[in-house]
Amino acid sequence: MSRAASPFPLTGAIEMVHGGGGRAMAELIAGLFRRHLGNPILDKGHDAAVLPAVRGRLAISTDGHVISPLEFPGGDIGALAVHGTLNDIAMAGARPICLSAAFVLEEGLALEELDRIVASLAAAARAAGVPVVTGDTKVVERGKGDGIFITTTAIGEVPDGVEIAPERARPGQAVLLSGNLGDHGVAVLSKRANLDFETDILSDSAALHGMVAAMLAVAPGIAVLRDPTRGGLSAALNEITRAAGVGIVIEEARIPVRPGVAAACELLGLDPLNVANEGKLICVCAEADADRLLGVMREHPLGRDAARIGQVVAEDAPFVRMRTRLGGLRMLDWLSGEQLPRIC
Amino acid sequence: MSRAASPFPLTGAIEMVHGGGGRAMAELIAGLFRRHLGNPILDKGHDAAVLPAVRGRLAISTDGHVISPLEFPGGDIGALAVHGTLNDIAMAGARPICLSAAFVLEEGLALEELDRIVASLAAAARAAGVPVVTGDTKVVERGKGDGIFITTTAIGEVPDGVEIAPERARPGQAVLLSGNLGDHGVAVLSKRANLDFETDILSDSAALHGMVAAMLAVAPGIAVLRDPTRGGLSAALNEITRAAGVGIVIEEARIPVRPGVAAACELLGLDPLNVANEGKLICVCAEADADRLLGVMREHPLGRDAARIGQVVAEDAPFVRMRTRLGGLRMLDWLSGEQLPRIC
Repeated sequence: MSRAASPFPLTGAIEMVHGGGGRAMAELIAGLFRRHLGNPILDKGHDAAVLPAVRGRLAISTDGHVISPLEFPGGDIGALAVHGTLNDIAMAGARPICLSAAFVLEEGLALEELDRIVASLAAAARAAGVPVVTGDTKVVERGKGDGIFITTTAIGEVPDGVEIAPERARPGQAVLLSGNLGDHGVAVLSKRANLDFETDILSDSAALHGMVAAMLAVAPGIAVLRDPTRGGLSAALNEITRAAGVGIVIEEARIPVRPGVAAACELLGLDPLNVANEGKLICVCAEADADRLLGVMREHPLGRDAARIGQVVAEDAPFVRMRTRLGGLRMLDWLSGEQLPRIC
Repeated sequence: MSRAASPFPLTGAIEMVHGGGGRAMAELIAGLFRRHLGNPILDKGHDAAVLPAVRGRLAISTDGHVISPLEFPGGDIGALAVHGTLNDIAMAGARPICLSAAFVLEEGLALEELDRIVASLAAAARAAGVPVVTGDTKVVERGKGDGIFITTTAIGEVPDGVEIAPERARPGQAVLLSGNLGDHGVAVLSKRANLDFETDILSDSAALHGMVAAMLAVAPGIAVLRDPTRGGLSAALNEITRAAGVGIVIEEARIPVRPGVAAACELLGLDPLNVANEGKLICVCAEADADRLLGVMREHPLGRDAARIGQVVAEDAPFVRMRTRLGGLRMLDWLSGEQLPRIC
């Protein structure tokens, strides 16, 4: 279907009939979803997309997006649904091949808002260079959903020789962080109905596979990549130490946090280390690769504030500890992240 | 994680904390999801699953499942989420490789019910021989979801030489149907809160890729496969005629419908041809292959009642028509399917 062909009316709202498998659903799919997302594979309208075989190993990740509010400073659920899932396969070192997207729409969702969100999802996918090749649309009654949930699945190929996994962390390796913490969580919280505070912080929502490719080009032996989303840096580091049976020590003074984020977190009683990010990554690498990787990251628009924040240490229990600005060592647990629902 | 390791308590209900990315979420995933779904790839607990490269072309499909009620005669949302998505790639002739599953859980969902549903999903995946290699769990507040939504994505490989697509329907080809229509829709409707009528009809929910493989073994040139889910047979046939620019004529007397389904449909004012199925397929094939395919289908447990129901005809407009028992020809439109929300 050509993009110009559909004068689909954007007045009105989603009704149950849009999910019934009949003509109204076909019109919604053709007039709204394909108008934005159209590409030769999706446009075939088959239940399954068929693509050429993959040369490297296959990387697959899926992520349900239920963020509230749907639109927030610096992003929306559409762009987030692309970035979040692409980043999950990028953390395996994969080059993305395609995305699928399944929408659960609540009766009453304004078609204009849906159109904005699908347009944003399509723009994010185009910017990332990854087509949405198949999808699904369901409609639930008013009060049985929350506007829109989007589940995306990303498929990619892992280049030969790349072996990235949390259990590959080893004592002596360096721990790098690609930029400022907490922007996404604070931007989203600033628009929550019950908070709504003033801030100029924007979500960092972004697709990281380009920077990862640049990093792998100079250091194919990267041990671990992880994006600190739900639960923030604390949860991500704890997952690494548990998977590898090692400890990690980070330096508080080296962790980049914007003053506005730090202030908002203080106001809200949150620790920036537990707040979600959507365009940042942690890299654990050989000491010998650390400076070269930092250089590549800082040259990339998404890694300008990259920093070496700590190192992997031998430890009997998989603890993450932080040397504070005052010189003490404190345990970095991952409990507090649980206090922030629906952040992605 | 070994399946026996986790004495996760199944009393109580889903709370917001189960979606926060912290320790409670990790325990839910390890103690409930991995206990049922565990396999070497999923158990790694990476954000992305990594699998060997695929030899054939890659087939991908995604499906959000929002069926209400969650459990119904002959199935539940867990098994359905496996069957529905596997069938979508089977309709491209693909052999399934793996599944992903993303769960949106509503605060207050009983853990015992979640456990039953995940166990059923796991059993369906095992029976189909397809591992769930990656997943995601989100939690939304009470009144912002409906118990559980499950979005699955299936990945498969399409054998060389297989070219199945709705646009390949050509005049003169035969139209086959693998069995009785309407069982799934009637079984689900019988448990809707506002209906709740007595019936012994069970959902036909089943994975069709085994039967498809047997069919392709005797007739690799199958033109079209389609599973008549939302919108039923009428919608599926209309999609084929529109994609291929042909007509289809079917014979009412040849379409198998159980007496109980026919009776329930009459009671509810529905046409069985518009009611959803979850374990049936339509096959469009060369006239010369029709009898051989029917033979293979009837030998398979999921195709015992297979029938030749009509043929593709040359037509200026993509109409589906049905020769009625009285000998007249009536148009088979796909409007009425819209009257059945949340059937899959």
